[in-house]
Amino acid sequence: MWTEQNNQLYKKFTFKNFSEAFAFMTRVAIEAERLNHHPYWSNVWNTVEIWLQTHDAGNIVTQKDYDLAKQIDCLL
Amino acid sequence: MWTEQNNQLYKKFTFKNFSEAFAFMTRVAIEAERLNHHPYWSNVWNTVEIWLQTHDAGNIVTQKDYDLAKQIDCLL
Amino acid sequence: MWTEQNNQLYKKFTFKNFSEAFAFMTRVAIEAERLNHHPYWSNVWNTVEIWLQTHDAGNIVTQKDYDLAKQIDCLL
Amino acid sequence: MWTEQNNQLYKKFTFKNFSEAFAFMTRVAIEAERLNHHPYWSNVWNTVEIWLQTHDAGNIVTQKDYDLAKQIDCLL
Repeated sequence: MWTEQNNQLYKKFTFKNFSEAFAFMTRVAIEAERLNHHPYWSNVWNTVEIWLQTHDAGNIVTQKDYDLAKQIDCLL
Repeated sequence: MWTEQNNQLYKKFTFKNFSEAFAFMTRVAIEAERLNHHPYWSNVWNTVEIWLQTHDAGNIVTQKDYDLAKQIDCLL
Repeated sequence: MWTEQNNQLYKKFTFKNFSEAFAFMTRVAIEAERLNHHPYWSNVWNTVEIWLQTHDAGNIVTQKDYDLAKQIDCLL
Repeated sequence: MWTEQNNQLYKKFTFKNFSEAFAFMTRVAIEAERLNHHPYWSNVWNTVEIWLQTHDAGNIVTQKDYDLAKQIDCLL
């Protein structure tokens, strides 16, 4: 579940291992570039954390972030 | 199922879409580099075809190919 | 240089090693999904071959193929 | 240049755009899995930040981190 905190949408994803986590990241990368909206995200081993906000709108959560969040959830 | 034909192990994989197919390819790429044994493979849209043989052994199927085939199947 | 043969745009790319070749493929994948136009392509070790044609137009070369070819060249 | 801070090797990488940054990440992912040593890393748009430390050794910098750092630099 995405939570809204500090003007960011945040969600943590856990996978079986690094390979599975990075395959997910590749799909998110493709989606981010398609929507031309990019996450701040981090990874270590089987865990991916994603924070979404819209810089152009003054670092707040906008429809662009909800759209990307929804597309990311569709990948799972 | 992998089939052996023309001194190659061959298998065709079908996915829901391009994004899912390419995520699989990323995982195969990681595995190939880890084993230092690389496939001949092709992709179009949701389909990935893989042919395995060992060039150093005179373009025949060796244990290296069976090992990579097994690791690839473990990704599914 | 892209050549047109059998109603396809074709180009062969050579890199230093597999890792560099696959990084290029990742960028092509992102671009293909962004343009919603996907190549038939193959890879072995440091070599990537790409064939472009438009299936919806009856398997001929269209502007979509020239556009993707141009974007791919921009990645180099 | 990698700097050592808080028992971590740290380096920030900047690229032309997201596509180039993510292609680099794909190569780092392949290398990390090959060495079986994985970074904590983050990305936003054209920037990749990497922190290396060895969890099994009690969260300090070890030879494994220097080795991965060196391999990452070789990708540039």
